[in-house]
This record gives sequence, C-alpha cells and structure tokens, in this order.
Amino acid sequence: MIVTLDPEAVSEAVGRELARRGLWSQRLSDPRAGGRVQFLIRPGSVPVAAEELLAIDGVAAVAAAESPHPRLDAQPRRVEVGGATFGGGGDAAPVFMAGPCSVESPEQIFSLAARLAPLGVGFLRGGAYKPRTSPYSFQGHGAPALGWLREAADAHGMLVVTEALGEEHVAAVAEVADLIQIGSRNMHYTPLLRAAGATGKPVLLKRGMNATINEWLLAAEYCLDQGNAAVVLCERGIRAFDRSTRNVLDLGAVALLSREHGLPVIVDPSHATGRRDLLAPLSRAALAAGAAGLMLETHEDPGRALSDGPQALTVGELEAIIRATPARLATGERSGQPSPISSCASAQS
Amino acid sequence: MIVTLDPEAVSEAVGRELARRGLWSQRLSDPRAGGRVQFLIRPGSVPVAAEELLAIDGVAAVAAAESPHPRLDAQPRRVEVGGATFGGGGDAAPVFMAGPCSVESPEQIFSLAARLAPLGVGFLRGGAYKPRTSPYSFQGHGAPALGWLREAADAHGMLVVTEALGEEHVAAVAEVADLIQIGSRNMHYTPLLRAAGATGKPVLLKRGMNATINEWLLAAEYCLDQGNAAVVLCERGIRAFDRSTRNVLDLGAVALLSREHGLPVIVDPSHATGRRDLLAPLSRAALAAGAAGLMLETHEDPGRALSDGPQALTVGELEAIIRATPARLATGERSGQPSPISSCASAQS
Amino acid sequence: MIVTLDPEAVSEAVGRELARRGLWSQRLSDPRAGGRVQFLIRPGSVPVAAEELLAIDGVAAVAAAESPHPRLDAQPRRVEVGGATFGGGGDAAPVFMAGPCSVESPEQIFSLAARLAPLGVGFLRGGAYKPRTSPYSFQGHGAPALGWLREAADAHGMLVVTEALGEEHVAAVAEVADLIQIGSRNMHYTPLLRAAGATGKPVLLKRGMNATINEWLLAAEYCLDQGNAAVVLCERGIRAFDRSTRNVLDLGAVALLSREHGLPVIVDPSHATGRRDLLAPLSRAALAAGAAGLMLETHEDPGRALSDGPQALTVGELEAIIRATPARLATGERSGQPSPISSCASAQS
Amino acid sequence: MIVTLDPEAVSEAVGRELARRGLWSQRLSDPRAGGRVQFLIRPGSVPVAAEELLAIDGVAAVAAAESPHPRLDAQPRRVEVGGATFGGGGDAAPVFMAGPCSVESPEQIFSLAARLAPLGVGFLRGGAYKPRTSPYSFQGHGAPALGWLREAADAHGMLVVTEALGEEHVAAVAEVADLIQIGSRNMHYTPLLRAAGATGKPVLLKRGMNATINEWLLAAEYCLDQGNAAVVLCERGIRAFDRSTRNVLDLGAVALLSREHGLPVIVDPSHATGRRDLLAPLSRAALAAGAAGLMLETHEDPGRALSDGPQALTVGELEAIIRATPARLATGERSGQPSPISSCASAQS
Repeated sequence: MIVTLDPEAVSEAVGRELARRGLWSQRLSDPRAGGRVQFLIRPGSVPVAAEELLAIDGVAAVAAAESPHPRLDAQPRRVEVGGATFGGGGDAAPVFMAGPCSVESPEQIFSLAARLAPLGVGFLRGGAYKPRTSPYSFQGHGAPALGWLREAADAHGMLVVTEALGEEHVAAVAEVADLIQIGSRNMHYTPLLRAAGATGKPVLLKRGMNATINEWLLAAEYCLDQGNAAVVLCERGIRAFDRSTRNVLDLGAVALLSREHGLPVIVDPSHATGRRDLLAPLSRAALAAGAAGLMLETHEDPGRALSDGPQALTVGELEAIIRATPARLATGERSGQPSPISSCASAQS
Repeated sequence: MIVTLDPEAVSEAVGRELARRGLWSQRLSDPRAGGRVQFLIRPGSVPVAAEELLAIDGVAAVAAAESPHPRLDAQPRRVEVGGATFGGGGDAAPVFMAGPCSVESPEQIFSLAARLAPLGVGFLRGGAYKPRTSPYSFQGHGAPALGWLREAADAHGMLVVTEALGEEHVAAVAEVADLIQIGSRNMHYTPLLRAAGATGKPVLLKRGMNATINEWLLAAEYCLDQGNAAVVLCERGIRAFDRSTRNVLDLGAVALLSREHGLPVIVDPSHATGRRDLLAPLSRAALAAGAAGLMLETHEDPGRALSDGPQALTVGELEAIIRATPARLATGERSGQPSPISSCASAQS
Repeated sequence: MIVTLDPEAVSEAVGRELARRGLWSQRLSDPRAGGRVQFLIRPGSVPVAAEELLAIDGVAAVAAAESPHPRLDAQPRRVEVGGATFGGGGDAAPVFMAGPCSVESPEQIFSLAARLAPLGVGFLRGGAYKPRTSPYSFQGHGAPALGWLREAADAHGMLVVTEALGEEHVAAVAEVADLIQIGSRNMHYTPLLRAAGATGKPVLLKRGMNATINEWLLAAEYCLDQGNAAVVLCERGIRAFDRSTRNVLDLGAVALLSREHGLPVIVDPSHATGRRDLLAPLSRAALAAGAAGLMLETHEDPGRALSDGPQALTVGELEAIIRATPARLATGERSGQPSPISSCASAQS
Repeated sequence: MIVTLDPEAVSEAVGRELARRGLWSQRLSDPRAGGRVQFLIRPGSVPVAAEELLAIDGVAAVAAAESPHPRLDAQPRRVEVGGATFGGGGDAAPVFMAGPCSVESPEQIFSLAARLAPLGVGFLRGGAYKPRTSPYSFQGHGAPALGWLREAADAHGMLVVTEALGEEHVAAVAEVADLIQIGSRNMHYTPLLRAAGATGKPVLLKRGMNATINEWLLAAEYCLDQGNAAVVLCERGIRAFDRSTRNVLDLGAVALLSREHGLPVIVDPSHATGRRDLLAPLSRAALAAGAAGLMLETHEDPGRALSDGPQALTVGELEAIIRATPARLATGERSGQPSPISSCASAQS
C-alpha cells in the first residue's frame, strides 16, 4: 500500500496517524524538485481500509493492489461440514479430529473409533495413503483402508477426514471423506489442489512447511477456483533452524488468519512438534490463539504403530486434553466484520 | 543418547519399547560380524532417564553426554525476584511486564507507571539504551532514563526490568534494575553475559532470533557461571522466511522449557509479531503454553512513540488483555519433578 | 555413526584420530560403572569408511545405519542423456540448458533455438505447463507447446528438457523430452516422482526450496525405484530469511554432492536469485563448485516475457556467460572413487 | 521504490520497460476514481537509478528512500590495508588469510607462519579470544597470544587479522592487528562495532549468521560512523534448515555486494561449511563469485587443535588450494561505476 500526501501536508503528522493505526511506514520522496512525499506501508502492518487512510488530513491518495484471492475472501466465516462447524465466532466449540497416523487394519480403526466418539471427537482421521520421505517406508493400505475408515466412522456417528495423496486417489477419497485433506508436502502441487477442488467437497489444506502465508492462501484459492465448497486451513508447523521440536508451530499465523481475517484454522500439534509430551500445552495454546479445532494423532498402542509412534497420544492422553479444553469464551472479539487481508502484506511477503 | 542391545536381544521388541516412551530411534549395526545392534535416539524425543531405558529387556547399555549446562539444571524451579514469582508450578499467577519501548521523558514514564500499577503490572519496562539496526536512529536517553524509571516504579510499588545494552552500562543498570535484561541481538555476546552474571542480579535473557534452544541455555549458563542469582528466559520470536508477522513466536520452545524442564519463561509477543492486533490472542496462547509471564510494550500515545509505535498497546488494550487472563489452572501437571533436558537433543541440535 | 572404544582405550587419543580425519565427534559414556566410551559422529563430518575407523587403535566397533538410497548410490558417476554427458570427472565440459520461462509461441521458440544452438547450448528448455503461485497467472500453453519445443530443438540438433507439472502430463512430456524436469514445488510429491521414474526416461530433479539434502536424495530414490534410467539433480536455491536475492543458492550442497559423492548436479542461478545482474558471477561460481552444467532462463525480449521477465537473460548476455566459462580443469580431483554418502549425516539431517 | 505514471500512460507498456531493466514490479491503483497507477518495485530487483526510470515514456515520478548507509556508499572501491589490496576491480589478486582457529602457543604460531608466508598468505589469522557456545570450552590464551601473533607475522612479513571479542579487548587488538575482526556472533552488538570503529583501524566485519544483507551493511555503517578507516566484509555462512554443511555459504550475497556494489568481501568457507573436504571447490567458487579474498583455518596437526580441528586444513591442503587459484580474470566487468545499493531493496528486506 502506498500513501501519497498533499503537497502542503505535514509528513510527520501523517506519519503519526499511520503509526497510531498500527502501520509500519517508510517515507519515500521523489528526488526531483516538486515531488510529493509518499509512504510505503510495510508488511506486518495492521490491515486498515484505504478509506480510513484517505480520511487522514494531508493524505491525497492511497494505492493498493487488488486482493490476489477474491474467492477465499468471499468464503463465509462459518464453515459447516457434515454438521460440524468451523470458526465463525466465539460461540463455536472447537472441533476435534483424532485417529492413527496410518489406518493399519479394520480391527484397529473400529476399536479406536469406538473409544474416540464418546470423547467428543467429531472427525476420525487416518491415512490410507501415506506420504513418506523414503520409498522403502510403509506407504499405507490404500483403497481398502478408505472403506474401513468410513465404516468405523459411520458406526459411531463420526465424520471422516483423510488425505488424498495423489491425483489418482482424489475420486476415491472424495467418495468416502467428509473433508479431503491435502498434505503439507503437496500444498504446492497445483494439479492436486485443482482436482480436490473440482470434487466440490470441502478441503482441509495443510500449510506447506516452507509456505508463506500468502502462498498458503493462494493454494486455497486454487481449490476454490474449481468450485469447491470451502477450505479449512491447517497449521502443522514450519521448518526452521532448530530441531528440538521437529517443526516450529506458527501460532502467530493462526491468530492472524483466524482472529483477524475470519478464516477457519485447525492446528495439528502432533506434526508440528513430533513430541507427545508437548501436545497438551500446545493444544491449549492453539485454541487460545484462535484455532477452530485440533487434529491429534492417537493410537491405542503407540509402541506398535506402523508409523510415527513416538508422537502418537494414547486414548487416555487425548481424553485428558479434551477434558482440559475450556468452553470457548464468548468474548465478542470475533464477532465483528473480518478485515480484508492486507494486499500489501500478501503482495510482498 | 545411544542404546546398545544385548547380543541376544530382539531389536524389534526393544524398538517398540522406545517408541512407546516417545523416543525417535534409528537402528544402527556394526558392519563387522558379531557387532551388536545400537539405537541412536534422535533429537526431538521425549526425555527419558537412562535408568528407565536400562530396565527394558534386552538393553545392555545406555550412553549419553553429560549435560552441558549443570548450573542451569540446578536452578530452582521457582525464581523469586523482588517479591515476584516466576514459574514453579500451577499455582503461580503470571507476571506482567509493561511499559514503553524507550523511556522518552520523566513525565512519560511517571504518568504511565501510575496507570499500569493498578492493573497488576508487576514490572515497569522501558529502554534507557536502545539497540537499533541503524546508527542514525534514536538510541535512548541513557543514564538519566534509568533514574526516571526507578523513581517511577518506586512511586507505585513496581519492580524494574531494563536492558543493559553494553558492558559499560551493566553496573548502572544493575544499580537500578531488579532484573537485568539481555537483548535478543546480544544473546551471543558472551562478555556481556558474564558481566551481567557477575553483578549477582537476576537476568532476563532474551532468545537470540537465530538461537537454537541449546545455544540459549548455554548463554544462560554463561550468566550463572559468574555467580548470578537466577536466569529468567524470554522468548521473543525467531527469524524465519515469512514476514507477515515480524518474527515467528516459538511457543513449542516455551512449552518444552517451561512445562517439561521447569524453567521460567516469559513471552514477549510485541517483538515476536510487531503487530498490535495479534497481541491479545497470542498473550493467551503464551500463558496456555506454559509461560510464567508476559512482556508487552505499552504507550499512552503510540502515534507519538519515538520507537516501535505501531506495535505498542494503549493502556486500555493492555488492560483488556490482563482482564482476560484466566486464573492459572492448578492442574498439577507442572508439579512433578522437572525432566533433565535431553543431553542427546541438546548435543545435536 | 557410533564409534565404541575398547575398555582400555585412551579416549583422548581416539578423539584426536577422529578429528584428524575431519570427524566432528561427541563423547558419550554409560552412566553405569563399566560402560565403554562411545563417540557419536555428528552431521557435517567428512565421510569416512567404517573400515578406516576400525583400524584406529582403541576402536572396538563402528555402527552405522544402512544407506537409505541404495539405487542412487549405485548410479554411475557419468550420466549420458542423448549424447550429452553430465559429470563423471574433470574432463567433461559443462552442459548448458537455456530457453524461456514459458514457451510462448512457435515463432518465439524457433527463433530462440536458432540463436542458442550455435552458442553451444545443448538443451532447449521452456515451460509448456507452468507452476504458478496464483491460479490467475498464465499457466502455459500446454500440450501444443511441447510439440513446438521438440520441433525447434530438432531443427537445430538440440535436446529438450521440460517440466512435467502433473501426473497427467508425464506421458506427453516423456514422449517429447530427453530429460523430464520435476520442479522445485513438486519435489515432495511422490506420485509424480514415481510416474516420471516409471517412464524410464532420465529425470532432472530440482531441489525443493525447503528440502534437506537427505530429502532430495530420497526423492531421487523414488524415481530410480521405478526403474528410471538416471537422475540428474538441479540446485535452484533454498528459502531463507533474506530476500535481496529471491532464494539462497546453496553451492555447498553442490560441492558436497558433485565433488565428493560423484552425483551430477546442474545449477539454475536464474531461479536461485531472480536477478539477471548476478547470473554471470554465480554461473562461474557454480561450475567452480563442481556443477555439471547450468540452466539459464533466456528470452529474446525479456520485457515482453509472459512470465519471469526480470530474471531472463538476453541472448547476448547468455553468450557472454558461455564464452567466459573456462575449459573444465582436468585436475584429477574428481577421478577417484566417490565416497559413500555418510549414512550418519543423512540419517540425522 | 515507487513509480507513478502519468494519467494518460499505458501501464502495460511501462511495465514492460521495467521488466526489461530487471525490475520486479507490482501494479497498484488508487481505489478512488481518478487515481493514478503506481508500480511498487519489489526487493530483489536489479538496481536502476531513478533518473533512468524517469526517462521512460509515461513515468511521472519516482519516489525512493534515502540510502540508510551513506558512509558505506562513500567508501572507495579499493581498500588498502598495510599494503594489501581488497577489491577494486578485476586486476587485484585475491588476499589469503590463514592460520589456526586458536593461537595455542608461541611455537605453534611461529612454526605455522614460517610455512604460510612463502605460499602467498598475506594475513596471519588466529584467535587470542575465542567466542564459544559453552562457558566450559577453551576460551583462548588472551593478551599473550596477541603478542605471539604479531611477532610471528612480523618475522615473515605478514599482516595480522584477529578478533576483538569484547569491548575491553578492542584497544589491545587494535594495537597489534592490521585488521580488527568482528565475529559473526557479535555483528549485532553495536557497542563493539562503535569501539572498533573508533580506533581508526580497518575492520573485517563478519556477517551474523542470521543477518540480512541490510543489517550487515548497517553494522558496517556503525563502524564507519565512528571514523574508522574502512570496512571489509566477510561472508561465513548463514543458518538455514539443513546441517549437512554447518551453515549455508551465501555466494549470492557475495556477488551482489562485490560485483555490483563495489564492496570488498572476503569469504570464510571453513566456518561456512565446517567440512575440510569442501574447502577446495568452495574457495574457487567464492573467488568466481567475486570475493576479494579467502580466510581459511589451517593447522599443522588438525587432530591436536584445541578447537575446530575437523574443519582445519593442513598446510599441504592449503597450498593446493592457493596453487589452483586462477589469476584473477581482468574482464573489465568490475571496472565500471558501482551501482548504488537499491534503497528499496534494503529498506524492505
């Protein structure tokens, strides 16, 4: 965003008005005589409508880029998926998604569903197709596991979220899942985004571990551009320089997107940290930051899990987390109009 | 950490036991015939005592590095500074630190202290010496500002935390401050760590924006090695690839250090995000993750602040955050013995 | 890698021998009486064969993980693609790949090919399918552009490298391309890796902008696991915190993979920097670091390019870079046996 | 940088002219009727003078921020230190700096100097004060080591570069050193920058491992602001997510600063990679990218080094690197006027 001043404006006074509104600005000036002062509004500023800036004394013009994701901006704040509600204000209870990393057998997933449903877990999760760093790791049971997952969920009144790992599986996943998950590694893979979007089913879009917020929102736009019903975002940690936790959970992004812009964001602390021992405090922190729900890997016997055992919760540990979740505060803080996502920030990030 | 198996052990069974305890392990084997199987425990694992692993059937030996920070390990869980209590269990109320980025005038800091004290702000903060990226930016009022800060705090029963920017200022800062702040840019500057430690005053040690957790703990060890009373850590965001928020607030690190290892950690969401509009949700999230308190930049008129105006809260906004802070849950979850910080993780990170 | 000492060994002496061989080690010891000293060899060490370590006086055993990418390890050092040679020793001339970001029209690509071939450009590049951050950006002309590219290359005795953006395009790309490019955004998308590998055609595998070296090599393994002929790697910059150059060109990775491990690595400085003005010095640096060739975006009129114009070279600028390329030094430095890629490093990174 | 168009300008035509000059631009427009089109020039663009943009048909005004580092901009291209020449065009031979990590004894440094001088090593390096992550690691021999270093250098006609680790050591270091080194960990510590600058001696300023290019240049400005003679920059690797090499050597930054802006930049591949086996190819790559010289850790017996042995070269390995250095190409490419460092890029990075 660029703010151009009137020739006679006092630039210091305008600068103060910008700072008062939470804008980080940088003063530019035309090296030719007669040039007007302009302020460049920098990324990381509070989003403020151009109209509000035009009302400041001394401001002549405000130039901004168009939003690069008009369909996402137009998505309703409250997203409904099979009776579950994501976001939309202080009164919605958080949505819990739980289940194993991989669907390992019919017995496993039926037994687990029977224990998760009574805890208030709305979505049964589990991988039929697993994205693995090595071609020699267990890759999932594939199509049969989709059926087991659906039956187990249906038997207990749960919904299903599962990943469509490849384009060829999108149709099969769309048939059984209530929410089609796009995994972190594939967030940049646009043919898959389009294929998932084209099914019309809602999508759970995990953030790429190196994706800027702008890239993440544009990935959502790829889904919506194909006519898809709705996108729920999922923060699962970004890659940084320290590996004491496997990734760095970016709750600032969750606050930015959920509190301010009205987008539903789920948090997956299991993959963010890779550490079972940190899931309880980070689950509470995620909800406090504005998350609409949590996705938590859960296994009846983590020692025997075919993948990611060390980060899986036992059912008892999951229950403790759910019980400790405070009823969502009805603060009214989320009830206003969502702010448009700053086009300046998104353009430059 | 290295786990060596008995010659006759079933390595798969031992691997399951490790996963069940939250350990990520990698199987190694000696290429010569007769070699025993060893498991390398990887960074990011749950800390488990060697004794517990030795009790697993088939485990012959467990080798680990010594802790690189014995003095920090020996610091009591509950740190008292001038009557304020940091950490130490579920029953301690969070400590609030607030004030301007820079101490701008006696009038400013007296007026602000009078408004902050009644809100429950225990520490008055404000910079006398300011670390600035450019030599041409305002560098603080220096020594006189230290006196104004102390008088303002004393007039309202508050404590003082302020930064010792250089070695030459340590003595003057130690004279007025209850808690000597070491800034993020200087966390790696060991002469300053030693000088601050040698005063015997407690230190608030901000994390370098690129510091691994291990480097941060070793910086604390530099202070404690000089006989300093205690170190309180302060997470203020790390530098990553996205700038929608100025830095990335690493609440996983806060959970790891505070919940699990019993160290007191303050969170500074102002510098972590640079965005006034995200401070309320992230303050709540920080406390939920286990923070012992919050540091929040506050100014009576952010538009006129000499530095960092766009990220400063008004007093009214600060009050709203403090009022929304839930009484600390006495869950008992923090009451156990702190775990030793995994020497394997710290050694390799 | 773990080095276990004899009970009577002098651990300091063994430590010196490890350091002398370029190994960063960390001494561990079993807390129980009678435990032996073990050294953990840390990531970033020079690769040394276990046999060499076993010959050190006092070393009882050396445990290491198996290589996670046996097929890549077995790939011949010298890769031939349609008469072009990648890597394989000091005597091979660098391979040049040039062409526009997008194939924009038959006229464009024919005219450009006619000018590039005489300069010694072996591969004509150009996107028929373009991965774009926004769904509203130009996405390429698709299948027709593949035909134009092939005809233009054939008319001038050139080879073709072009990206298979999605699984559905792999067959069409394999039909026309001599080298199937997998783009940086899709390096983690395993179904595409498998589909490309299954064609049997050689693959140019760009590094994901957040991929560790280990993940990159495992992505190559996915291709080779399907029977594909060969993988040529392409470094194109990783994402870090500074954006003065768009990405950070990681020539340390190029040196590591090409000089030491005998893998062919192409460098794409165009995408690494996004800056036309830096392409000449970085092209020379890439070859000096061990690159087997260069990929450089080139356009006859960068101002009219449909995508990425500001980073495209003019033909004259490309010619200057090619002419300045020193004949490859025949130092013999590359002629020895490649080292196995340290399983310890790759396992832990 | 902001480019404002005439009301009647054809914005597409102007956009093409910007792209042709290597500028990445983003079109903005005033949401009110009558607003003019503006282009925001994004970071990572080729630096182009405002005057050149004003000459484009349809451009009404060009606004830019002042350079934040006028003293650095005014530094002559060619920096002379005790007879050694850094940078300044294609005809200057590279400067070599070599020596041990720590000065360990008089015998060590005398013996080494006698072997390095004949190889053409102009600067003897060695740490008297060592910055160490742990307070329990060897911290250097201090003041006596400074004397040994000076005498050893004098005996063989060499110059001295050594680190001033703390403010208290600046005077002693300035007395013996020809070039005062500021280490990577302390680049952000402004009191040390000022103290070193105030000595009037030239400074070798290592880049902080997380410093943006803009922060690095502003750190240089801190030194120059105190009247210091000259600043030579030193790239030593930045911290990223992969640890196969300890840091990531950013040769794009070297090309940007040295080739384009005429600043002298030394490269330290020893600390950049931590791997002795990669120093030969990366030394050549650094010079090809435009480095004015190299700093290489060298030890007569790396196995017995008190610090950083695994990354030290033997004298024989250093000799091979120096002998393989091509005579600097007199391409004329560096002989033009340096470009001003883009104020837009530096302001936003």
